[in-house]
Amino acid sequence: MFELHASLESDSVRIGDLPLSSVRLCNDSNYPWVILIPRRKDIEEIYQLSPDDRHQILLESSWISESLVEIFSPDKLNIATIGNIVSQLHMHHVCRYKKDACWPKPIWGQVNTIPYDNRILKKTIESIRLRLEPNLISI
Amino acid sequence: MFELHASLESDSVRIGDLPLSSVRLCNDSNYPWVILIPRRKDIEEIYQLSPDDRHQILLESSWISESLVEIFSPDKLNIATIGNIVSQLHMHHVCRYKKDACWPKPIWGQVNTIPYDNRILKKTIESIRLRLEPNLISI
Repeated sequence: MFELHASLESDSVRIGDLPLSSVRLCNDSNYPWVILIPRRKDIEEIYQLSPDDRHQILLESSWISESLVEIFSPDKLNIATIGNIVSQLHMHHVCRYKKDACWPKPIWGQVNTIPYDNRILKKTIESIRLRLEPNLISI
Repeated sequence: MFELHASLESDSVRIGDLPLSSVRLCNDSNYPWVILIPRRKDIEEIYQLSPDDRHQILLESSWISESLVEIFSPDKLNIATIGNIVSQLHMHHVCRYKKDACWPKPIWGQVNTIPYDNRILKKTIESIRLRLEPNLISI
């Protein structure tokens, strides 16, 4: 059975479930940063998913991308599957701004995370959940 | 008409063309590092591609991933669309090793590139081209 990796669970907050993937917000207020985690066991790379699941993860990634652009108006999206530390497949979607803490560098291994204030965390999650709602199967 | 960005052209070497994307090897011998560039004008993000093109880029990304795993046996693949400096859509595929120059950090903004020795560059390109050959439309 699929089980979310403990580090992903502790570093991020649940937004809801799309048909294939769980959607979570990284608890780092430096940038709006959403992670998609397909609920499949023992998968580390996108190419290891079935063709149907590959199709679905790209669709879900596009839903996330469009939602982030609409809500947060980033200057650029950074999308990545890295997994050098937590190998369970997870796909980062990060809103980048020309004035953010480490522009133009990618965010990984640069500045410390800054957890959200609780009120802003809740508001941010709600705004993403509302935009994704037509496609969510549970929240 | 699609035109390859000058920085992508100068930092990488042509391997060949898949139906949608050009395939190039980054001239950095720190890690086998292949870039896919869909030959579409004015596209910065995957979600901006048509549904058919999105399907095709994921297929081509999977071909690249499987080829890299087969040829170079990495410990992990790192796949990303960043584009903070060069916004023309390009998809990085990097073979990572537990003993490489910046494991476990992502490679961007970490260590200086080390251009390949010419003989090894040629051999590396040939090995990837040979593996991709059934799907290449030109070399």
